[in-house]
Amino acid sequence: MPRTFRAIDVIRKKRDGVALSREEIGALVNAYTKDEIPDYQVSAWLMAVVLRGMTRPETAALTDAMLRSGEVLDLSSLSAKKVDKHSTGGVGDKTSLVLAPLAAAAGVAVPMISGRGLGHTGGTLDKLEAIPGFNVNLSGGEFRRVLATCGCAMIGQTAEIAPADRKLYALRDVTGTVESPYLICASIMSKKLAEGIDALVLDVKTGSGAFMKSEKDAAFLAELMVETGERMGKQVVALITDMDQPLGKMIGNALEVVEVLEVLRGGGPADLRELCLELAGWMLHLGGVAKTVAEGRQQSANLISSGKSLEKFRQMIELQGGDPRVLDDARHFPQALHTMPVASARAGYIASMQCEQIGTACVILGGGRERKEDSIDPAVGIVLHKKVGDRVAQGETLATIHYNSDAKAQRAKQLIETSCLISDSAPATKRPLIHKIIRKSTENN
Amino acid sequence: MPRTFRAIDVIRKKRDGVALSREEIGALVNAYTKDEIPDYQVSAWLMAVVLRGMTRPETAALTDAMLRSGEVLDLSSLSAKKVDKHSTGGVGDKTSLVLAPLAAAAGVAVPMISGRGLGHTGGTLDKLEAIPGFNVNLSGGEFRRVLATCGCAMIGQTAEIAPADRKLYALRDVTGTVESPYLICASIMSKKLAEGIDALVLDVKTGSGAFMKSEKDAAFLAELMVETGERMGKQVVALITDMDQPLGKMIGNALEVVEVLEVLRGGGPADLRELCLELAGWMLHLGGVAKTVAEGRQQSANLISSGKSLEKFRQMIELQGGDPRVLDDARHFPQALHTMPVASARAGYIASMQCEQIGTACVILGGGRERKEDSIDPAVGIVLHKKVGDRVAQGETLATIHYNSDAKAQRAKQLIETSCLISDSAPATKRPLIHKIIRKSTENN
Repeated sequence: MPRTFRAIDVIRKKRDGVALSREEIGALVNAYTKDEIPDYQVSAWLMAVVLRGMTRPETAALTDAMLRSGEVLDLSSLSAKKVDKHSTGGVGDKTSLVLAPLAAAAGVAVPMISGRGLGHTGGTLDKLEAIPGFNVNLSGGEFRRVLATCGCAMIGQTAEIAPADRKLYALRDVTGTVESPYLICASIMSKKLAEGIDALVLDVKTGSGAFMKSEKDAAFLAELMVETGERMGKQVVALITDMDQPLGKMIGNALEVVEVLEVLRGGGPADLRELCLELAGWMLHLGGVAKTVAEGRQQSANLISSGKSLEKFRQMIELQGGDPRVLDDARHFPQALHTMPVASARAGYIASMQCEQIGTACVILGGGRERKEDSIDPAVGIVLHKKVGDRVAQGETLATIHYNSDAKAQRAKQLIETSCLISDSAPATKRPLIHKIIRKSTENN
Repeated sequence: MPRTFRAIDVIRKKRDGVALSREEIGALVNAYTKDEIPDYQVSAWLMAVVLRGMTRPETAALTDAMLRSGEVLDLSSLSAKKVDKHSTGGVGDKTSLVLAPLAAAAGVAVPMISGRGLGHTGGTLDKLEAIPGFNVNLSGGEFRRVLATCGCAMIGQTAEIAPADRKLYALRDVTGTVESPYLICASIMSKKLAEGIDALVLDVKTGSGAFMKSEKDAAFLAELMVETGERMGKQVVALITDMDQPLGKMIGNALEVVEVLEVLRGGGPADLRELCLELAGWMLHLGGVAKTVAEGRQQSANLISSGKSLEKFRQMIELQGGDPRVLDDARHFPQALHTMPVASARAGYIASMQCEQIGTACVILGGGRERKEDSIDPAVGIVLHKKVGDRVAQGETLATIHYNSDAKAQRAKQLIETSCLISDSAPATKRPLIHKIIRKSTENN
């Protein structure tokens, strides 16, 4: 820390659009983590960052300072390369639950630390907890043991990982300073790099169900994260993938695990299966077990066909206290009391889906949190029978709602009905599932 | 207050460059004054204002909300028009002490609420307190009584006047959000309009000793204040005046009162006398006792010649508990123990003075505060014998330092020596004393 560090100087400098040094950023994050500077100074600085931006070296310095605010997992005792995947969040995005056992079955170590649902999007931890008994709150030692035993482990953020991020995120949430690619990048990358990984595959979502609605914003964030990871000596690739409609057909925590099992059994919806294979291909390639991404995809497909990835999932569930009977009989998952069809008001083709609205419908059913203190109902959710481009007859079922409260089901039904735009002809163009792959930052400054 | 007011919405709106409504600004200021929203939200909002700016209606709404956070003095019982003058602050700027008695002698009521020294600039209250016994902390009732008796009264800010400004200013000071013309305007105008005045003459300083170094920035602030005042139904004029060298020849609290007395006796340095006459001309014109500014200047000159303004000053000093003997014998002012000359290192002409540096020299001597808790030494200061354009011989005295501490005097001497640039020839152009007069805002949005 520079001897003369004063928060006010750093705030003024950023306010005036001057790039901060690594030492200044380090001192600010360090002092804030230790409660040595007040929230009101940090929130003014955060707003200046939102409006003035950051250079690439500043973004890397912020990521590094946040990473170093806590513990970095030491997984050097594992001989396998450690690779993780991170998604910026979407609706029906359950790829993590497929990818961790799949990549582990291929010989890559996957130390995955995930989050809970945020806004209209689901969270990996909430999905895992739909498996009765599954414990996402392992100690560091337990986490390492599960990882060493089966090659993958999935837990929530611990108090030791990037405490600066937890403190900064809580402040950003109440000061209108969440929406900055630089701050989002530092938050994601600091937590992921604290996992002690060698490589990272980023799934940056774009479309009506993503936080970054425009592809331009998604690509900007993706490039920023790739470059930040590279500056910190990690192999990072980002895939910009589609979130203009839900991924797969099931939305809701237990329902999504059911769909994960379909994919691990060689079935499942085409888009979900395709995205899992592409992301797994990259994980295997970066993890050093496949020479190319194509080879990684092929290996992954084989591991699914042979049932090895499903067995790896069973092993992880058992090691983390979950009930493995869910794999053999879906009735061991929490079940909603009622189901209700949502019928199409007219015949035609699904032209588009307002994806965020469908995510919100699932939150309203109880599948997500409207307020932080809300608890999750793992059983509720939505099964889509139609996706964009599909033909529907008048009165045909678009979706089935799984619910435990009539009032909530009515609100969700309305949202689903109004989220689907039905037109007379099939949509002329189809949005690609994978928009862009960003391997190396195109910009350096 | 809108029923659904949430600070976070107002922060986000301003962050995104959207103009806030009068209701939103009012609700924010009101909630903050009542401690209903935390500092960290307000500082994020302040930074967004610094970087996004405000429209004219927003600036007026903020001024109005801050004004209404406290008491507005009711001076309607006075038949005379109430006119005040405000300066943005400079070095050697003692015009307020001349203007209050001068305008009062002409029949204008001057309810003047002033501040203390800030940074390198002096403060009217500190100067008044150099008069032994002078009480600047009158109650509202005493203030009104002095004003009714002699037509002018000079006090410090009370707890009842614009409490929102006091709270916001303290937060701005520690969050790098002082430097915004919109926030400066609202701070100044809310306090001045709380005085219950009809008209206001603004002296906006520009040059090396001013807070607004460039004329462009000074003019922007001046126009903003004039328009804000007009939107609130007051007559406001702003004079952009020179602060590229100290005003007059004396700097330091007691010394400045001595120079005030010189002006009120018909003498004093030409620049100080000229600026006082111009500002007084405007005060008398806006105060309705002179048809034109020129007539107001003439009346003011006459009131000085006749000794009536000096007698008014004596009356105010007596009413506010000060020792009137200072008017007859300067030895009743606090006297510094020592004086020391600052000699010119070379012959030539004074090409320029680094005015802020001279102000800082006076602060170092003890004439201002280096930290908020410091007390003022009223006796110390600097007497300039030369001003810009003057010829000096080698070894000739440029200034005399009045001091009570050798170490401080040495530091001040160095600053004064290095503040004067001496060249072989006289400066080709002379900066005007009055750069611009702004009567009506030239921009509306």
